[in-house]
Amino acid sequence: MGALPLSSQLIDHLRSVLPQDDTREALITSVVPNLLQSVADVAEALRNSHHVSAAGTANSFGDVQLNVDVTAENLIREAITRCPSIVTASSEEDPIERPVHPSPSPSSSCPPSSEQYTVAFDPLDGSSIIAANWTVGAIFSLWDGASALHQDPQTKQTAAILGVFGPRTTAIVALRVPGTPQSCFELALDSSGGGGTWQVTRPSLTLAPKSRYFSPANLRSANEDPAYMDLLMGYIRGAYTLRYAGGLVPDIVHMLVQGQGLYVNPVTARNGPKLRRLYELCPLALVVECAGGRAVDPSLGSAILATEVRDCGEKGGLLCGGAEEVEEAARKLHDLRV
Amino acid sequence: MGALPLSSQLIDHLRSVLPQDDTREALITSVVPNLLQSVADVAEALRNSHHVSAAGTANSFGDVQLNVDVTAENLIREAITRCPSIVTASSEEDPIERPVHPSPSPSSSCPPSSEQYTVAFDPLDGSSIIAANWTVGAIFSLWDGASALHQDPQTKQTAAILGVFGPRTTAIVALRVPGTPQSCFELALDSSGGGGTWQVTRPSLTLAPKSRYFSPANLRSANEDPAYMDLLMGYIRGAYTLRYAGGLVPDIVHMLVQGQGLYVNPVTARNGPKLRRLYELCPLALVVECAGGRAVDPSLGSAILATEVRDCGEKGGLLCGGAEEVEEAARKLHDLRV
Repeated sequence: MGALPLSSQLIDHLRSVLPQDDTREALITSVVPNLLQSVADVAEALRNSHHVSAAGTANSFGDVQLNVDVTAENLIREAITRCPSIVTASSEEDPIERPVHPSPSPSSSCPPSSEQYTVAFDPLDGSSIIAANWTVGAIFSLWDGASALHQDPQTKQTAAILGVFGPRTTAIVALRVPGTPQSCFELALDSSGGGGTWQVTRPSLTLAPKSRYFSPANLRSANEDPAYMDLLMGYIRGAYTLRYAGGLVPDIVHMLVQGQGLYVNPVTARNGPKLRRLYELCPLALVVECAGGRAVDPSLGSAILATEVRDCGEKGGLLCGGAEEVEEAARKLHDLRV
Repeated sequence: MGALPLSSQLIDHLRSVLPQDDTREALITSVVPNLLQSVADVAEALRNSHHVSAAGTANSFGDVQLNVDVTAENLIREAITRCPSIVTASSEEDPIERPVHPSPSPSSSCPPSSEQYTVAFDPLDGSSIIAANWTVGAIFSLWDGASALHQDPQTKQTAAILGVFGPRTTAIVALRVPGTPQSCFELALDSSGGGGTWQVTRPSLTLAPKSRYFSPANLRSANEDPAYMDLLMGYIRGAYTLRYAGGLVPDIVHMLVQGQGLYVNPVTARNGPKLRRLYELCPLALVVECAGGRAVDPSLGSAILATEVRDCGEKGGLLCGGAEEVEEAARKLHDLRV
């Protein structure tokens, strides 16, 4: 860990979808590769974390689960420290934006950069399904500047990365850099040669406007929310295919790889919001939007990225997927509540 | 692949739950270790099978997906060939019971055995979710004698193994050898030292009679089957937690590791049976029963293992999980249909 085997294919792809001048050189050669290296490091750590789930009871797993979270957190923090252009970072485990490097300037072998980023990350999403050896993930949100708070998410959130820890190690990268078209693509870690390099496996992920798949989260809230119950019944009657891992990363990645899907996690009085805006909702919304889909607040119907994040602890619901499917669902949820 | 790093912990555990005489020596030292080695081999092959899912379209994935299936099939066949006591084998990919060794007697370095087994296996279950990098599995069913057909599944199916390919590589082993208590336990592949050895991580898996989780397969059949719809609504109203990967192995393993759950895959006129009795239903039923649960035919309410397999191609539905939960669900499905 620490060594960074640069994949020339990855760098070439990043250069092809980012500005041709040198304004994003640190993003291309340092930030994205180092964050991806931390995904590879976490995958390797998880592969042999059997002791963490050995006890078999919910209580004792609760304790050791924390250990896996901390391992992932530390590996990602190490990677962030290797990037002079990442000036601050915060995570779901430590939700305060803190300076990454000792002030005033980072002492590093890398050249100083005019680019400045902050990273917000969730080191290990899917704690409820990790004991069963189901696919889990890591979520990264990258913003221009030293803080993600009180910024316009539409223009300041520059990139999002989902690390996917399954039978393989894969990653989804979404880029929205002003001046170039947004893009969303899939990478896979090739470890056949030993160290591991990232290969571009799906150079362009797109979500079809309509879908035949649905992922209903927070299902018990359908008891309180007739609109949600009605929406669900519509999918069942319409013979949609159910896929619901209960992990945000696998559920969204299924949609992206399948090229279609609808994920809904509504909020009700008794079943309050569970998804963190900074560590989950904003990066997932960027990914979905960069794939041509939509991500909206299920209560309001407005885009997740239309509202500034004012506090690292903010939470909300999520309705995302193919554009037309999301609009229909948002309308149904809204009409039935009025 | 081929080298078999015997885990003394695994062998010790097998000896502790199997007959103390030498009547199952080949099962303990050859069959179970070699089948588990093939699980490790398939996991390793999957880890770098990125090209199989690189194309991104359903059609081209359909083609390459076949390649992964064939790779898994071949690795498992190799392992079976290393076991003199496995006399015949069949798989979902090649559903005919064929001799494993050239007649009349196997030429092998292992000593000849009085034990005779047939193996029925599904090399890679979960083809619809492998592109999304979700957890998939392999299923093994081991029977006393040279054929699984026209045998009593209750007494002749001696063992079942589920290989689980996720962030880690794990396996569930169920044993029902006449004369010793049945058992069900979890193993994990420790690859930290290089080659990989299997460690016992959960020495005894048990399913609670009641559950708070449900996995509804074949959801669209609820449109035809009011009893299924009513059952589903009962779980939603009862605030059960939904988990449904859509892969038989991850869905059943989630239940076993969580210690509770209910999986239902009903059959209707329009949505016919999809699960193979020999390659899926019998081994999964053994695993669930060995963990103290029940596995029944959702149409008949009778135990999956109460009926002989007459043909390698037979298919059926599945209702399994905690004993009380399954009985209640079977009653509801039955009463509402009468």
